[in-house]
Amino acid sequence: MVRRVAIVGAGVTGLGSIKCCLEEGLQPTCFERSDDLGGLWRFTEHVEEGRASLYKSVVSNSSKEMSCYSDFPFPEDYPNFLPNDLYLKYLKMYAKQFNLLKCIQFKTKVCSITKCPDFDDSGQWEVVTVHEGKQNSAIFDAVMVCTGFFTDPNLPLSSFPGINTFKGQYFHSREYKHPDIFKDKRVLVVGLGNSGTDIAVEASHLAKKVFLSTTGGSWVLSRVFDSGYPWDMLFTTRFQTVLRNFLPTPIVTWLIANKMNSWFNHTNYGLIPEDKIHPREPVINDELPGRITTGKVLIKPSIKEVKENSVIFNNTPKEEPIDIIVFATGYTFDFPFLDKLVVKVEDGQASLYKYIFPPHLKKPTMAVIGLIKPLGSLITTGEIQARWVVQVLKGVSKLPPPSVMIEEVNERKKNKHSGYGLDYCKALQEDYIPYVDELLTSINAKPNLFSMLLTDPRLALTIFFGPCTPYQFRLVGTGKWKGAREAIMTQWDRTFKATKTRIVQESPSRFEILLKLFSFLVFLVAVFLIFL
Amino acid sequence: MVRRVAIVGAGVTGLGSIKCCLEEGLQPTCFERSDDLGGLWRFTEHVEEGRASLYKSVVSNSSKEMSCYSDFPFPEDYPNFLPNDLYLKYLKMYAKQFNLLKCIQFKTKVCSITKCPDFDDSGQWEVVTVHEGKQNSAIFDAVMVCTGFFTDPNLPLSSFPGINTFKGQYFHSREYKHPDIFKDKRVLVVGLGNSGTDIAVEASHLAKKVFLSTTGGSWVLSRVFDSGYPWDMLFTTRFQTVLRNFLPTPIVTWLIANKMNSWFNHTNYGLIPEDKIHPREPVINDELPGRITTGKVLIKPSIKEVKENSVIFNNTPKEEPIDIIVFATGYTFDFPFLDKLVVKVEDGQASLYKYIFPPHLKKPTMAVIGLIKPLGSLITTGEIQARWVVQVLKGVSKLPPPSVMIEEVNERKKNKHSGYGLDYCKALQEDYIPYVDELLTSINAKPNLFSMLLTDPRLALTIFFGPCTPYQFRLVGTGKWKGAREAIMTQWDRTFKATKTRIVQESPSRFEILLKLFSFLVFLVAVFLIFL
Repeated sequence: MVRRVAIVGAGVTGLGSIKCCLEEGLQPTCFERSDDLGGLWRFTEHVEEGRASLYKSVVSNSSKEMSCYSDFPFPEDYPNFLPNDLYLKYLKMYAKQFNLLKCIQFKTKVCSITKCPDFDDSGQWEVVTVHEGKQNSAIFDAVMVCTGFFTDPNLPLSSFPGINTFKGQYFHSREYKHPDIFKDKRVLVVGLGNSGTDIAVEASHLAKKVFLSTTGGSWVLSRVFDSGYPWDMLFTTRFQTVLRNFLPTPIVTWLIANKMNSWFNHTNYGLIPEDKIHPREPVINDELPGRITTGKVLIKPSIKEVKENSVIFNNTPKEEPIDIIVFATGYTFDFPFLDKLVVKVEDGQASLYKYIFPPHLKKPTMAVIGLIKPLGSLITTGEIQARWVVQVLKGVSKLPPPSVMIEEVNERKKNKHSGYGLDYCKALQEDYIPYVDELLTSINAKPNLFSMLLTDPRLALTIFFGPCTPYQFRLVGTGKWKGAREAIMTQWDRTFKATKTRIVQESPSRFEILLKLFSFLVFLVAVFLIFL
Repeated sequence: MVRRVAIVGAGVTGLGSIKCCLEEGLQPTCFERSDDLGGLWRFTEHVEEGRASLYKSVVSNSSKEMSCYSDFPFPEDYPNFLPNDLYLKYLKMYAKQFNLLKCIQFKTKVCSITKCPDFDDSGQWEVVTVHEGKQNSAIFDAVMVCTGFFTDPNLPLSSFPGINTFKGQYFHSREYKHPDIFKDKRVLVVGLGNSGTDIAVEASHLAKKVFLSTTGGSWVLSRVFDSGYPWDMLFTTRFQTVLRNFLPTPIVTWLIANKMNSWFNHTNYGLIPEDKIHPREPVINDELPGRITTGKVLIKPSIKEVKENSVIFNNTPKEEPIDIIVFATGYTFDFPFLDKLVVKVEDGQASLYKYIFPPHLKKPTMAVIGLIKPLGSLITTGEIQARWVVQVLKGVSKLPPPSVMIEEVNERKKNKHSGYGLDYCKALQEDYIPYVDELLTSINAKPNLFSMLLTDPRLALTIFFGPCTPYQFRLVGTGKWKGAREAIMTQWDRTFKATKTRIVQESPSRFEILLKLFSFLVFLVAVFLIFL
């Protein structure tokens, strides 16, 4: 029987995991290497080893309604997309609300996690930690690894011929904190991911010239989506997911390309993905096209050669003088405290069943949380993973036999796509909702929309056509939260509250009234004809 | 017979005026107060008295194809919207190309322009200037005033109760140069014009908090319009103008509101114009909604009271701590060197026929160029004004009798709308093309689309449905330029060239091919049915 759970890391997934353990009666102990919680979301002026490093201006890419813990909505006056300081504040409020701090041991680095000699029987782990120079060892019934994947920079210098001769400054995006360093410089950012794009855009306000180099291109999405609604509240709906899975791939590809090009034509802006059927996850940025059309950021193809003070790109023999190169080439990951045999990492992919469980262990008492790249928020995905893990640890939910799990892992590896940094199964990006639903089904917390259509049709329709906000995951079954329905029905109120800070009394125009009257008449005639 | 023309100011309209005089055989002398050309577009680190003052980051609001001199397109690799340094470079290229420098007297301030004693007969003016302390006087046959209207800040402090008690810093937007001053401050920007919005957005990258206060609200447009095309190249077309003038006002208002809200819903973002039928000219900004939804800029209604260290807005009793107030409250204008009887300025409006000629002078030898606020570029409007003025000066084009001109001026005054700063006739904003066409007709340079449809249908359709680029004004008649047709046919090439700096070989998807085949079949069937 599992009772004592070691949790590694007190970031968003670590905090969610502590909470899930507590609410199911387990005893979590969380080891946090640094002196505070928040993980990725805690900005520091200096890069800390073994911890993700933010730049000052980072804003969340998923909206507050889509990226909160499922029983703890953001305050209504918080902005829709959160600057990192507010995100951290929210995490602290969460920790306080659910009394999580008592479970966290700060400044405690996990040195090793090894199977106990009787593991095949007990499933226990020995966790060795060090706190202020003092080593400690303890036995746990289970381990949840919540260390994330933004700690080990991927810097493939060998892919850039001549980089050794470059006399300017170069560094990995992880080192980047403030744009001041770019003042009046000629800057080259390599890599069209979220960081690369953010950095290029930010540099362009100060630099003399900014180039953003990309091999594969990418779709770029604005947080400000159709009519200004948060992109993920329109994009990540059950209805759209059904539609995308129902329609043939060429039509979906075409529809997505059309949608993406409606903001700006990616071909004309030099950003078009080379592979439109399996593009990388889209870049979220509000400013990039504006910076391109004003000549502040120039999109360039891949680098042919780096020289002493310049760079040659693959489209033209012209040398572009460059002072600083930022390699936004992503991250690799590793579990230095784990035996390679426990979690196998190959080609940037970890062999984990459902991205969580090492498939070959005799006892399912080791889980990795948040080692995925959902197109949306890691908070919600991590939380639902943790809820399932806790049920597995308690023995309520069962894993399939190892052979089935290993097959799933191998199948996924085939879908690997190319690009800098981590490569994940593309399927998960598109199929966020099916993935979450699968986990919800395992813990009997998936709402049944068909029966709900009879008992609470308004809620059912809101869930199906509206944004797939995480409150949906707390409506029924294990971990049910009685505020869930209310939170769903008020999700748009909280969204508008954030931006509607000047209110004007509006009366519909004469034309609008006429239009409505006319629509109503057409409706009446239609009803009349149907029933005639 | 007019020969010698005095031109006051060597900004965009001054340069255009010199060129127009030269090409029609007049002898222009341009007096420029500062030591270089460029006027508004020449950024300096310090505000200079009597000259418009830019902040460092200013980018043009109209695109390069829509805002160039009509016979001098921007280089194709210039960005679509121009940072001020490139704009200035272009102006210098223009001055060099047409040899304008020889006509400009720099560091020469115009002190007074007065009618000569025999004005009623000769139409001549005495122009008194001062150069390096030395006064000079000369007689000119005509005067073109090209001083613009961004020199005299409008700072209506009495409208802000309590401003005298405010202990923080406050200044007019004219004083603003760099965002550094906002670092970690709580900033309030008053006025939702282009400057106010730019400053608020720029401050929000550094400030602790930014409020943008507006009484009337405004539509906000992005330079990156539908599919990323420059907004004015889609909006300012002859076809759209015909449509807007043909449809009833309520429908046009509704269509415009719908279009404006498709980027973001202005009600939800607190920006909705109070008066949707006669809104102010739209604000052009690419970043504002992104800054609002990330909580970096908060839109606020008008100010109720200013206190020592805070401000109370009209919607809530809450005091907001404020460190800096920027009054982006626009400009007033004046002609200090002219007798009030020559050009009457009342309530922020000058009494000028077609925004150009004082209507009551015995001889039409005084013209004001560029004292308008077209929804688009001042370069093109100013140039076409100058071309007409030159024809009037030469006696080729005649003005109507004073009574007709005075009536036109009075009619326009009635359309005055409210808001900070200058108030212009709204009509001109919407009716840019009709206004320009009227001036073109006066100088026989308006292309006849009907006859062109027979002789050069491709050009005619491009002119009617495509952007109303200024090359259209040089196709026929006085001032004809032989490169005009070519410039029109390549306008989109130059537009794409600026941003398409990474090219990917694309093949249409299977679905696209099918879709095209299907459309073609439908077309064939339709043709078959029609001719059956």
